[in-house]
Amino acid sequence: MNRVVVPGEPIGRLSESWRHCVGTGRLNLALRADYQESLAMVQRDIGFRYIRGHGLLSDDMGLHRVSNGQVRYSFTYVDQVFDRFLELGLRPFVELGFMPTALASGDDTVFWWKGNITPPKDLDEWAALVRALLRHLIDRYGLDEVRTWPIEVWNEPNLVNFWKDADQEAYFRLYETTARTVKDVDAGLQVGGPAISPGSDEWWAPFADFVTRRDVPIDFVSRHAYTSGPAQHVPFGTYQTLTAPELLLEQFDAPRKHLAATALAGLPVHITEFNTSYRPDNPIHDTAYNAAYLAPVLTGGTELVDSYSYWTFCDVFEEENVPTSLFHGGFGLLTHRQVPKPTYHLYAFMARMGSHVLARGVDHLVCATDDGRVTVLAWQPVGGSDAPEAPERHEVRLSVPMTGPRAFVRRERVNEHDGNAFGAWRELGRPRSPDRRTIEVLRDCARPAVEHRSAAVEGGRVLLDLALSRHEVTFVELIPVEPEEHTGLDDRRLLGGSDERLVAEHER
Amino acid sequence: MNRVVVPGEPIGRLSESWRHCVGTGRLNLALRADYQESLAMVQRDIGFRYIRGHGLLSDDMGLHRVSNGQVRYSFTYVDQVFDRFLELGLRPFVELGFMPTALASGDDTVFWWKGNITPPKDLDEWAALVRALLRHLIDRYGLDEVRTWPIEVWNEPNLVNFWKDADQEAYFRLYETTARTVKDVDAGLQVGGPAISPGSDEWWAPFADFVTRRDVPIDFVSRHAYTSGPAQHVPFGTYQTLTAPELLLEQFDAPRKHLAATALAGLPVHITEFNTSYRPDNPIHDTAYNAAYLAPVLTGGTELVDSYSYWTFCDVFEEENVPTSLFHGGFGLLTHRQVPKPTYHLYAFMARMGSHVLARGVDHLVCATDDGRVTVLAWQPVGGSDAPEAPERHEVRLSVPMTGPRAFVRRERVNEHDGNAFGAWRELGRPRSPDRRTIEVLRDCARPAVEHRSAAVEGGRVLLDLALSRHEVTFVELIPVEPEEHTGLDDRRLLGGSDERLVAEHER
Amino acid sequence: MNRVVVPGEPIGRLSESWRHCVGTGRLNLALRADYQESLAMVQRDIGFRYIRGHGLLSDDMGLHRVSNGQVRYSFTYVDQVFDRFLELGLRPFVELGFMPTALASGDDTVFWWKGNITPPKDLDEWAALVRALLRHLIDRYGLDEVRTWPIEVWNEPNLVNFWKDADQEAYFRLYETTARTVKDVDAGLQVGGPAISPGSDEWWAPFADFVTRRDVPIDFVSRHAYTSGPAQHVPFGTYQTLTAPELLLEQFDAPRKHLAATALAGLPVHITEFNTSYRPDNPIHDTAYNAAYLAPVLTGGTELVDSYSYWTFCDVFEEENVPTSLFHGGFGLLTHRQVPKPTYHLYAFMARMGSHVLARGVDHLVCATDDGRVTVLAWQPVGGSDAPEAPERHEVRLSVPMTGPRAFVRRERVNEHDGNAFGAWRELGRPRSPDRRTIEVLRDCARPAVEHRSAAVEGGRVLLDLALSRHEVTFVELIPVEPEEHTGLDDRRLLGGSDERLVAEHER
Amino acid sequence: MNRVVVPGEPIGRLSESWRHCVGTGRLNLALRADYQESLAMVQRDIGFRYIRGHGLLSDDMGLHRVSNGQVRYSFTYVDQVFDRFLELGLRPFVELGFMPTALASGDDTVFWWKGNITPPKDLDEWAALVRALLRHLIDRYGLDEVRTWPIEVWNEPNLVNFWKDADQEAYFRLYETTARTVKDVDAGLQVGGPAISPGSDEWWAPFADFVTRRDVPIDFVSRHAYTSGPAQHVPFGTYQTLTAPELLLEQFDAPRKHLAATALAGLPVHITEFNTSYRPDNPIHDTAYNAAYLAPVLTGGTELVDSYSYWTFCDVFEEENVPTSLFHGGFGLLTHRQVPKPTYHLYAFMARMGSHVLARGVDHLVCATDDGRVTVLAWQPVGGSDAPEAPERHEVRLSVPMTGPRAFVRRERVNEHDGNAFGAWRELGRPRSPDRRTIEVLRDCARPAVEHRSAAVEGGRVLLDLALSRHEVTFVELIPVEPEEHTGLDDRRLLGGSDERLVAEHER
Repeated sequence: MNRVVVPGEPIGRLSESWRHCVGTGRLNLALRADYQESLAMVQRDIGFRYIRGHGLLSDDMGLHRVSNGQVRYSFTYVDQVFDRFLELGLRPFVELGFMPTALASGDDTVFWWKGNITPPKDLDEWAALVRALLRHLIDRYGLDEVRTWPIEVWNEPNLVNFWKDADQEAYFRLYETTARTVKDVDAGLQVGGPAISPGSDEWWAPFADFVTRRDVPIDFVSRHAYTSGPAQHVPFGTYQTLTAPELLLEQFDAPRKHLAATALAGLPVHITEFNTSYRPDNPIHDTAYNAAYLAPVLTGGTELVDSYSYWTFCDVFEEENVPTSLFHGGFGLLTHRQVPKPTYHLYAFMARMGSHVLARGVDHLVCATDDGRVTVLAWQPVGGSDAPEAPERHEVRLSVPMTGPRAFVRRERVNEHDGNAFGAWRELGRPRSPDRRTIEVLRDCARPAVEHRSAAVEGGRVLLDLALSRHEVTFVELIPVEPEEHTGLDDRRLLGGSDERLVAEHER
Repeated sequence: MNRVVVPGEPIGRLSESWRHCVGTGRLNLALRADYQESLAMVQRDIGFRYIRGHGLLSDDMGLHRVSNGQVRYSFTYVDQVFDRFLELGLRPFVELGFMPTALASGDDTVFWWKGNITPPKDLDEWAALVRALLRHLIDRYGLDEVRTWPIEVWNEPNLVNFWKDADQEAYFRLYETTARTVKDVDAGLQVGGPAISPGSDEWWAPFADFVTRRDVPIDFVSRHAYTSGPAQHVPFGTYQTLTAPELLLEQFDAPRKHLAATALAGLPVHITEFNTSYRPDNPIHDTAYNAAYLAPVLTGGTELVDSYSYWTFCDVFEEENVPTSLFHGGFGLLTHRQVPKPTYHLYAFMARMGSHVLARGVDHLVCATDDGRVTVLAWQPVGGSDAPEAPERHEVRLSVPMTGPRAFVRRERVNEHDGNAFGAWRELGRPRSPDRRTIEVLRDCARPAVEHRSAAVEGGRVLLDLALSRHEVTFVELIPVEPEEHTGLDDRRLLGGSDERLVAEHER
Repeated sequence: MNRVVVPGEPIGRLSESWRHCVGTGRLNLALRADYQESLAMVQRDIGFRYIRGHGLLSDDMGLHRVSNGQVRYSFTYVDQVFDRFLELGLRPFVELGFMPTALASGDDTVFWWKGNITPPKDLDEWAALVRALLRHLIDRYGLDEVRTWPIEVWNEPNLVNFWKDADQEAYFRLYETTARTVKDVDAGLQVGGPAISPGSDEWWAPFADFVTRRDVPIDFVSRHAYTSGPAQHVPFGTYQTLTAPELLLEQFDAPRKHLAATALAGLPVHITEFNTSYRPDNPIHDTAYNAAYLAPVLTGGTELVDSYSYWTFCDVFEEENVPTSLFHGGFGLLTHRQVPKPTYHLYAFMARMGSHVLARGVDHLVCATDDGRVTVLAWQPVGGSDAPEAPERHEVRLSVPMTGPRAFVRRERVNEHDGNAFGAWRELGRPRSPDRRTIEVLRDCARPAVEHRSAAVEGGRVLLDLALSRHEVTFVELIPVEPEEHTGLDDRRLLGGSDERLVAEHER
Repeated sequence: MNRVVVPGEPIGRLSESWRHCVGTGRLNLALRADYQESLAMVQRDIGFRYIRGHGLLSDDMGLHRVSNGQVRYSFTYVDQVFDRFLELGLRPFVELGFMPTALASGDDTVFWWKGNITPPKDLDEWAALVRALLRHLIDRYGLDEVRTWPIEVWNEPNLVNFWKDADQEAYFRLYETTARTVKDVDAGLQVGGPAISPGSDEWWAPFADFVTRRDVPIDFVSRHAYTSGPAQHVPFGTYQTLTAPELLLEQFDAPRKHLAATALAGLPVHITEFNTSYRPDNPIHDTAYNAAYLAPVLTGGTELVDSYSYWTFCDVFEEENVPTSLFHGGFGLLTHRQVPKPTYHLYAFMARMGSHVLARGVDHLVCATDDGRVTVLAWQPVGGSDAPEAPERHEVRLSVPMTGPRAFVRRERVNEHDGNAFGAWRELGRPRSPDRRTIEVLRDCARPAVEHRSAAVEGGRVLLDLALSRHEVTFVELIPVEPEEHTGLDDRRLLGGSDERLVAEHER
């Protein structure tokens, strides 16, 4: 295998589209303590910029209330949720949905918590609700702030589960009314759609045509991306096939292609949901494989779109009802009670890469930081279900530029054993509702394995030979070292000897 | 007005029945951050021992789950809730209800969150659920611990809102099956009922007869107590009349009277809910009047029953849907985001009384602490809606025993102005969804007013002349003081003078 | 008494010179937990920008170490202290002193902790130390950061206590060497002096002459200000006379006057220490009088100088040895264990004034905030020791501009009783080493008394009649109120009545 | 090598003498934030019961103060220190020393901070001080509490550094006066001595004789233990030889032997200081060797004495002046800013052993916990300086009893690379004053390496083959596992396959 010689000068900057946004369970869940603790941890280690979830307008948020015939727009919970997001450094990526029961034209719902998926019975009442909401947000958080919050109209209207009859015309009406209302409140607010699911690229042309023809405001477009096949249900779980990770990147790129010749060409594109499987009960999400699979997506998608939002940051999520087990195949980067999954580490590693890209490859990304460190993210390339099983071992060999006489090289590893709480949980007998002590054990086993050494810098280079285990994602940090001199220092004398018997490790 | 001469020796101990238990919104709400922050604050300042709420078995707790035809008893949320209670020094007062949809014989529900109120379609399946729950709790928390948790069967089965048709016979069947199942799991567990609402004393005789006749296990009896009249609804609120506070104490005492000649005589009696109004949208709960009204109940009920549980500790509560305003007439001692109401202070004052009762009166309770302090709780007596309006001022005059040459006398006042966040909120224009700054203002205005002075102890006595404002509840603490001598000390010299011009305040 | 009509438009901005800097006990004390907790509290409530204290170079900071004949500049403690300052939002106002023993030309010391006050035995060694320190700080914190830190050469060289023989010529030599060394490290660093004590204005001319003649770098000048007379010692305490507060402002203004005709005219002027008494054992610091005395200084000095630094933020201070009593006349705004003194509240009130000055008077300052609130700081004017005793009562009558139909008026009071922990401590018998419970009582008694009401705005005006008690400092905040309308709302119905009997307070 | 078959039944209980007490730098340092943070961490992970340090009576604690001729016993700092100890679950092991300057008969001092080592000039004044201190402690903490605090008279009076002329007769006088004073305050208080250093066993006979002859109260005896040879100084450091670890145990056992035939036989024996080297600047303390060396001492000393107190819990310690480097050979289990050293992990591992001893060996200790886990502490045996260098590898083979069908086996490793911050620090170029980022790297590298697996239990046994690296200390925990069954579970289907291709790791 040849050694990749990483250039000493940057070839570009690392865009932040990979952490521009993250997904969340319905917004009512944001009131929960477990959720908030998870989000604080995610923000400490990863630092997303926006957060998007369903259900802002659902009954359990209490936004549209009627009492003794009087309507009141009420923000008790919305304020609690958005206040907390902002405290944690996150801005809302506002998704308008589902329908308040009092405004709904029908009683079709999705999920056990009954999000109403029908169009408004009266578009004026809907517009009044949107207007009241936006005005309140501007009052509370300031116009400058709210202008930075994208407003997305509905979720996956191309699916009958999420929009009554997947009625395209009805969606366009909803979009138009909403977009005009948003701009009526303030022309600087940003509105977009159509938030379609994978496999619905046939919506792009009519959508572009509609908004162009009627001159409907639009500031960005959005869609979702998943690579899983049909659900194979078992009790309390689902298995699925997956296509190759490249297919995710293709889905990211689709809007630009489909809109290239339209008036919407050049608009910002947001992938407002993505993951391997779209099921919240597929254990693939809990595995090291998931991290290895997504590594080339996180590193490779940064230039394709303006954001791609991992669905979701934690397992506090109830679309397949209340989870019955700590690990249950949830979307989360974290389980309930903050046990990190391998994909959490992938994101945390990305957050520690510097902003200057030195090299990109099929199994690595190398960056430099402003203060002279060099970082490496390396992974074992994996395919989808049809690909051959990943081998036990994968080698990455690099020559990395470095200043100074020596470097401190620190490596963190996540694979089938290391940094793998799911593996430890299986070894513990898959306890569905572990006690505090066992959760501590899981957290401890969830830490990446750490290795470190001192390396000589020769000719401005450090050679890295990284042997990766199956499904491994590795992070390496090289810190330039200028040893401090100490007169009299002699590690051989630690045990009082004066001979040459004891030679310090680091001097070999 | 005569001065009450408080005896120097205790006349008894202050029972802890007043803080034995507190009520809470449905248990799913215990997952919320706002709820948990409120509960931590309540425990710091008041220190309840048990907590009781509805909905342990409701669908949103995810206890009874079915997937692909397989039943799973799942404790994901129950464990999170009970773990947290125990961390905060609270034990569950377990209320078994409402019915999991999968076990229900009908689809009648209560509240917007749809607690199912129908009997189980199969008593064996119900028993299996109860058994699984108890065994799990014993596994997780230990048998010794769970034996201290009272288990109450259902809630207010005498009301059609809470139990299909208020079917007494069906309740007795449920009670019997449940009680036998509980004792089957472990004979040391405690079970009881019938958790009836006010105005249903006709249930006592048949209940006693039923459990006696069929030899059904029973360890305690329970009922509720409220003194409000019919609801007069307005949009987003309710007004009601109230009877006199003595009627609450009568309700407390009713079970003992009704059961006196039965086999249940002598069983522990728990008032598992009480308050002035039974409506979660009656602003009376937010007032100083509410505190003054309940002062003789808290001080006067301690010997009548084993516990009386204030319904509820905080406004995170949704039985009248999501609250639309910070102050909305909720049951809570605290509003959302932890603004204390006057009744919160009443409880916090009680928590600071010593355990040795020196005197009880219609407008005062005087206690002594183990370390020599004397405490006074004083209040303006108020009647119900039919009583004349309370005057602007009420005098309490006491002669209090005290050791030492001097005493430090510290008083805290709660009335229509002081320690009254509701009053400040009205002055602020009743902001429904106040921003953080305004919440800080409210918290600040919620603090009781503080006064302090040095008093001479003469003949082992300090004279207290307490002038109370309208609806005031006052707490006074007397600390014996032994001044430390300082040679050279002369407060008159603070400004450098050597004359007699400046005389320190405290020496006057 | 006439009512002051406060203009509706600002007459200027409130400079931040009043909180530009604060004083501290010797820097070694900054390692203490009590100190750090106090500083965090001060920063939360007041928010100083810089902090200045003695002893950076003293032996207990371990900066200059010798072992087996080898010299090492060591930053173990300096880094801990400066890291913490920066975390708390404070920058060092670097005072270079006292002399490391190994560099000292003599063994004269000050204080029980033996700060060496002699000139360096070798100016080159001194320069080497200064150079090493500054280079380390630049390495660690960055050049841009360190360029914002003023560097002051020594402390009060005009006093024999602080500088061997108060040798002016020796000080000038030290200043010159230091200033040239500082600029040699980086020309953008700021250096200044001479940090003289009150009563030494005769130093200005020769100092200006010296630096001008020899073209010595200088970026700012500094001096101290106190208004106390000779110490009248008693065991563990000192009494002193005070001159009038105006004399403090005169001292602030002196450098500008004395330097007006010199080359130093126009340089920034920093009062690097000020207080009433210069003694750390004069109980005047603990009193409400101290706050009332300083109120016109804080409000009146803002335009005179670039900063005036209260000496000191907390009682963790050992210049008169280890304090023997919680209140002992220390300089601190806070006692040990964070009990606020009245002067703490004065500073906290100032921090809540808006930045737009509407009116200044002998007993008041009125400001407006960016969000439409109006703030008032009012005080009873007091004189020094020779002035007549302050009367029991002082009236401030204002007409204040306000928008909206109503205003929420909130007042906080500090005087001989309210917000006065020292008063409570005296009533408690002056416990020297109070237990935790008593400290809680003191903290509670240290809170300002709070009053609030709703006021009608008439003709864009609210009338304020403020009656102040003896030595009172009062803070008033007026918040514009736009009442939210509620259909059905009727406070008269709170107790269920439908008649006119109950009229809500706020509607009167 | 033979496999050790660990019995299924306990052979005894693990005494807590190993964590009964821990040493600390002088008590004034307990006021520091860094110190308190370290102590909190130590208590969380290890949980010592008592803490002992020098300097309670030294001037910097301000206990004995004189002002204007008046003496005041002052407890400002003592209270802060002891309050904090108790909050952290620690009781003072009170060492009475050094001499307040005002009471001293001479001016001989020890350390740069000048602890006065001379006898009191007046034994009555000394007795008055002791009496005042004890009465204050009893007032503040209660008699029951203070009776549990051992009171040790002075420190190492047999050394001229610590006691003027090492005058035995003078020490005996001091001991007698002190012991009688202690008992005079309360007969239930515990007093002891003579706190002698290693190499002074000739003191036992005269001490026993003296207290017996004069009937002086004594409740326990104390001495110190170290195994280092003469100091070989280099700049800012010391190297020394060490004898074998068995010699430490011999020193522990010496008092019992020497007192066997005296009236003091049977008294509790406390080793109030021990470590390898007695120098606070010997880097041996920072190494994995130190942990491996002490492993047989911690496990082997538990039955020899009532306590042996590691000197000291953290590097906040100034007996060799202010440390000039993060790692500097300090005694601490933790460096400044809480980087754990290998010996910290040894203690933390011990704290996780259960209380039922199953087996003890030259390289292992095996225990069982109350809840059915089995724990193993294993180490590579090492000798002193004269022993051959430890080999690269050491094998420990055990057969461990276990219930259930499977076990979860978790191992933590500390050796020359893993859990070894000192090693990482050397690789980082020995930065003396690392920035926050580097400290984070060191903390991360300080974590023990973690391994885990699922093991079959066969015949009630799990076989453990532990390969230890050089100087390794390993902790292993075996948790019995009862797998939870899941219908439909099939890890081979994770990627959607239905064939046998994917076999879950844990089923192999």
